Amino acid sequence: MYSFETLTQMFTEKFEQIKFPATLPTLYDPANYFLGLGGKRIRPVTCLMGNELFDTISPDAWHAGVAIELFHNFSLIHDDIMDKAPLRRGKATVHTLYGESTALLAGDVMLVTAYDHLNKIKATEQLNKILTLFNKTAREVCEGQQLDMDFELRSTVGFDEYVRMIELKTSVLLAASLKMGAILGGANEGNQQHLYEFGRNLGIAFQVQDDYLDAFGDPAKFGKQVGGDIVANKKTFLLIKAMELANERQLQTIHTLLATNGGDKVSAMLEIYSACGVDQWAKQFMRECVAKAYQHMEDIGVLSSRKTALLHVGDFLISRDF
Amino acid sequence: MYSFETLTQMFTEKFEQIKFPATLPTLYDPANYFLGLGGKRIRPVTCLMGNELFDTISPDAWHAGVAIELFHNFSLIHDDIMDKAPLRRGKATVHTLYGESTALLAGDVMLVTAYDHLNKIKATEQLNKILTLFNKTAREVCEGQQLDMDFELRSTVGFDEYVRMIELKTSVLLAASLKMGAILGGANEGNQQHLYEFGRNLGIAFQVQDDYLDAFGDPAKFGKQVGGDIVANKKTFLLIKAMELANERQLQTIHTLLATNGGDKVSAMLEIYSACGVDQWAKQFMRECVAKAYQHMEDIGVLSSRKTALLHVGDFLISRDF
Repeated sequence: MYSFETLTQMFTEKFEQIKFPATLPTLYDPANYFLGLGGKRIRPVTCLMGNELFDTISPDAWHAGVAIELFHNFSLIHDDIMDKAPLRRGKATVHTLYGESTALLAGDVMLVTAYDHLNKIKATEQLNKILTLFNKTAREVCEGQQLDMDFELRSTVGFDEYVRMIELKTSVLLAASLKMGAILGGANEGNQQHLYEFGRNLGIAFQVQDDYLDAFGDPAKFGKQVGGDIVANKKTFLLIKAMELANERQLQTIHTLLATNGGDKVSAMLEIYSACGVDQWAKQFMRECVAKAYQHMEDIGVLSSRKTALLHVGDFLISRDF
Repeated sequence: MYSFETLTQMFTEKFEQIKFPATLPTLYDPANYFLGLGGKRIRPVTCLMGNELFDTISPDAWHAGVAIELFHNFSLIHDDIMDKAPLRRGKATVHTLYGESTALLAGDVMLVTAYDHLNKIKATEQLNKILTLFNKTAREVCEGQQLDMDFELRSTVGFDEYVRMIELKTSVLLAASLKMGAILGGANEGNQQHLYEFGRNLGIAFQVQDDYLDAFGDPAKFGKQVGGDIVANKKTFLLIKAMELANERQLQTIHTLLATNGGDKVSAMLEIYSACGVDQWAKQFMRECVAKAYQHMEDIGVLSSRKTALLHVGDFLISRDF
C-alpha cells in the first residue's frame, strides 16, 4: 500500500498533465494558470487512499480524484471572486489577473471538465452513486459559501449553525472524497459511511486547528501573521465560542473590539479568549473530533494494517501538539 | 406524435415542478426566482421532438430536457452578471435583486442540479454519450460567451469568427438538445449528426433574424425598440457584414457613427446598411441557413410524416417572411 506522501507525488504528476486546450487562450490560459498554482491535493489523494483501503487502486479512483481536484479548484476560483481575494497561494487570483467575468467562466469550464473525468469511470454500476454523491457534495459546498456570506452580515451566529457552515464549506468534500474512493473500491455502505464520518470529523478538527493557530500559533511555524482573523473581524470557531462562553462584561468588550481597528486589538481579544477559556476549549474540541474520526476508522471492517496510511493522514492534518 | 405547442405545454408543466429546497432561502429563493421568470423552453422541447422522431418519447428524454433547461438558466444567470444586465424577461436579474455573489452561487447550484437530472437517465449505455455531448456543449457555450466579450474589446471582427462565436454561444445548445433526443431515441450516428446540423443551422438563422429585426423590424410586431443594437454599438451580423461590404467612405462613416451617441445615429447606420446591401444579404443568408437545415432534415432516414412537427419548429423560429 502506498503512503500519503507517495500518492501525493503520484497524483501531482498525473494532475500536472491536465491542461485546457490552446484553442481559446483568453479563457483557457486563466484556467491553466490557476491549476498551475499548485496545492496540497489532499482531497484526491484521500480518494485514492479510501479506494486502496478496500482493494488495489482502480483507474476509476484516479478519474474521481481528478474530478474532485478540478471541482475544488472551480470552487476556489469562484470563492476568490466573491471574497474579492487578491491572492491565492501567494499569487494573484484569476479575477485579479484576468477580470471577474473571465474568472467566472474559467470556474464554470473547470466544473464542467470535472464531470468529464467522472464520465471516464468504467464501473457503470457505480457511476450513478458517484454522480449522486458528487452532486450532493457540490451543492453543499455552494451552500456553505452562501451561509458564510450570510453569517458575515449577522452580528451573532450560534455555535451549532457555525459548525454546520464549516462542515458544508470544508468538511463534506474531504468526507466525500474518501467515500468515493470507498464506493469504487467495492466497500459496503456501512464502511463507506464510517469513512465519510472519518473525513467529516477530521475536516472540522482541521478548521478549528486553523483558527486556533491563527490566534495562538507560533508565527515562525504557522507561516502567516498571527491574529489576522482578529484584525479582519473574521467569524471563527474561537470568536463564536468566545461569544457563547463570555460573561456580560467580556461580551461587551468583544463587541467594542469588533468595532475597533488597530491599537492593541489582537492582544486584547486574545486576552478575552484566554479568560473565557476558548484556547482550552478549542484543544479539547479538536481532540474530541479526532477521537470520533479515529473511532469511525476503527469501526471499518478491514484489516487494521490496511488503515495505517489513512491514520497517518490524520496526523498530517492535525498536529500531535493538541 | 405531439405538436411543438403541445410538448411546450407539457414540458412547461413538468418543469414548473422543479423547485430548489426551502432549506437555505438565501441561496435557493434566488434560484427559484429565476426559474419562475419562465422562458420559451425551446431547447428541451426540441430534445423531446428529436427523441420522438425515432421512437415514442422516453422518460430519459424528459430527464435530458430538464437538464438542458437548467443548464440554459445557469448560463443566463452567469451571463447576466457578466453583461451587468438589469433585466431578464422584463424582470430584475438575479444579481440585481440578490447581489453578484449569490447570483454566481445560484448559477453554480443550477449547473450541478442539471447533472442530477442527467444522472436519472436509465439507459446506462447512452448516459456516457449524453454526458460527453452535454459537457462538450457546456464548454462551447462558455467559449462563446468569452469570445463575445473578447470581440467587444476589438475594433474589427471577421465574419467567419463572428459566425463561430454565435454558433458557440447560441446554436450548439439547440443542436445538442436535438441530438440528445436522437441518441436517447436510438438513432444511428448519421441521423444524430443530421439532426445536430439541422439545429445548428436553424440557430444561426435565428440569430441573423434577431439582428435583422432589431434593425429593420416592425416595432409593433417585434416587441422591442428597433435600433437598440445600433444605439449600443453591439456587434451584430449586420454590423460585421456591413464592415466587410462597405467601401472606404462608408467604412469611415460607420466608424464615425460608432463613436457617436444620440442624434440620428440609428437612421444614419440603417442608411449605410441599406446602401451596402446588408439587409438583402441578411435575408439571403438566412434563407441559405434554413435551406441547409431542411436539407439535413430531409436526409434523416425516417418516414417524412414523422418530420412534420420538427419542420414546424423551423417555421416557428424563422418567419416565413424571409
